[in-house]
Amino acid sequence: MTSTSLPASSIVAGPPPSLQRAVAVIEPMLDEVVGRLSPTIESAVRYHLASGGKRVRAALALLSAAAVSGDEAGAVAGAVGIELVHNFSLIHDDIIDGDESRRGRPTVWSKFGVGTAVIAGDAVLALANQVLLEDPSPYAARAAAFLGTATQQMIAGQADDMAFETERVVSVERCVEMSRCKTGALLRCASALGAILVGATDAQVEALGDYGTHLGIAFQAIDDVLGIWGDPEATGKSAANDVLRHKKTIPIAAALASGDPSADTLADLLTGDLAPEDVVRVAALVDELGGRRHALALADRHLGAAIAALERVSLAAEPRAELVMVAHYVTERDR
Amino acid sequence: MTSTSLPASSIVAGPPPSLQRAVAVIEPMLDEVVGRLSPTIESAVRYHLASGGKRVRAALALLSAAAVSGDEAGAVAGAVGIELVHNFSLIHDDIIDGDESRRGRPTVWSKFGVGTAVIAGDAVLALANQVLLEDPSPYAARAAAFLGTATQQMIAGQADDMAFETERVVSVERCVEMSRCKTGALLRCASALGAILVGATDAQVEALGDYGTHLGIAFQAIDDVLGIWGDPEATGKSAANDVLRHKKTIPIAAALASGDPSADTLADLLTGDLAPEDVVRVAALVDELGGRRHALALADRHLGAAIAALERVSLAAEPRAELVMVAHYVTERDR
Repeated sequence: MTSTSLPASSIVAGPPPSLQRAVAVIEPMLDEVVGRLSPTIESAVRYHLASGGKRVRAALALLSAAAVSGDEAGAVAGAVGIELVHNFSLIHDDIIDGDESRRGRPTVWSKFGVGTAVIAGDAVLALANQVLLEDPSPYAARAAAFLGTATQQMIAGQADDMAFETERVVSVERCVEMSRCKTGALLRCASALGAILVGATDAQVEALGDYGTHLGIAFQAIDDVLGIWGDPEATGKSAANDVLRHKKTIPIAAALASGDPSADTLADLLTGDLAPEDVVRVAALVDELGGRRHALALADRHLGAAIAALERVSLAAEPRAELVMVAHYVTERDR
Repeated sequence: MTSTSLPASSIVAGPPPSLQRAVAVIEPMLDEVVGRLSPTIESAVRYHLASGGKRVRAALALLSAAAVSGDEAGAVAGAVGIELVHNFSLIHDDIIDGDESRRGRPTVWSKFGVGTAVIAGDAVLALANQVLLEDPSPYAARAAAFLGTATQQMIAGQADDMAFETERVVSVERCVEMSRCKTGALLRCASALGAILVGATDAQVEALGDYGTHLGIAFQAIDDVLGIWGDPEATGKSAANDVLRHKKTIPIAAALASGDPSADTLADLLTGDLAPEDVVRVAALVDELGGRRHALALADRHLGAAIAALERVSLAAEPRAELVMVAHYVTERDR
């Protein structure tokens, strides 16, 4: 449910090869299935997809199949399906959040209208299921059910995220649980979906899924930090939005739980309408109260847990190494 | 995609027994699966479902199984799934159309906000797929794929319906094709989904599906007539809405195609903003140009074709008779 662009970090010089491969591998099927949509919807969806996501979830689905069977070929429908679910959620999230731009371009609703954006998202969600159920794998129905569960969790996380905006204080635990759903569920699914399609064991699915869950939480914690202190040039979105909307992200939840008397001032600030100078004050206060440090430490712990999960089961060495690279890549961003 | 209440007609004294049965049969599973949703979404969905749909689609799914196997029991997940898809579409349609009330109560978006209505619809759509994929039937995946195709067609029909609003003239053929998708696809699916779950032959699925398609077109043609000349008390929605939105419904498309010189006046009227007196004038003009007569005759032909489709294959006599009753019931409304 996040869309921050991922600039090159000090560890990795650019997107790992698996991400570049994923873009090419899923393109033909993605293009074919989007071409089945009715003209208005197709235009809106192609416009959205052209904004250039990193296809991280597709790469994870392909790598998970390779880690289990040595071959990515059986996982293409899974990679396309998970990208479709991710993009359906972006199209609808932009309506929900009232965001007018994404990656520097007008969002689907602001370009085509709310009505078209609603049905475009619906069509993309339905398409994701169709793609999986059409796959010849004997495990296609299991994969479709797995994707359905993840989708439902992601939506529940989004509902919690919205509900938190009107709560004065949200604990770090609830905030992490929300991130586990909102962001972690789909990354969990991506990291095991390809493996399911090629007949992974339950233990492999569990380990790959745990990798994805922890990666999702780590990713979200970093995204939350960038949502307050990120460079809008690099992230492609205003750094003030999360604060203006009273979002209870991980750094804010941690600051509110600091026990410091200023936590109450912070809670007050996050209750009313915020002027630009208030946003600056909130950012400074959350930092002083240790919110940023807490979120980054939490991200590091979950990154470690993600990588450790891959060690629990037998997986092919090269795809496993690529999964580790992807994990570093998506969590090493301009902090 | 329609929601007009269905008043008792001169032929049937009240809802056929199969509809009353369907409400009771699906209630436990519907209640259980909605209870899995996250609290905010669950509240919104229960609120929406409590507005009291007739569960026509559930009844069709159950009857289609009984027609094939003599037993409705194997089709409950299908009946619940198709009702969920129908209700997802109502929740989102009300956002798209900006409708503030449905069956005399505020719509989900007007009561809970657009954001909640968007994700509530999303959750209900995802839930429909989950319900089918969890079913123990060996044909569950086939049924889920069938439902996915129907959902996609319904969405395409909705997109066409929206696109037609800005077109000056739409032919009757395109309008019927739009209705075949927008309304017919889900009724087609409902009328065969239960049969699929209990192992119907392809010929049975085809015949039951054709019954549903024709029933959907007949239903939509009647709904279009009620959308212009219906009694708002009986239909639960303003009779002027379709006209105010420049919807190219079947009676309007037929009037525009009449070849009469006033058809051009009608097209002009349907291009700009309409005052209340213009709506009255449009209704009178469409009637004069034969639009109402054309739509009702078209409904009758498709009702006949629906019933005839049931004769093409071997089906149990009693459920078949009930399918005929349902067809009469949903198309015999206060004309």
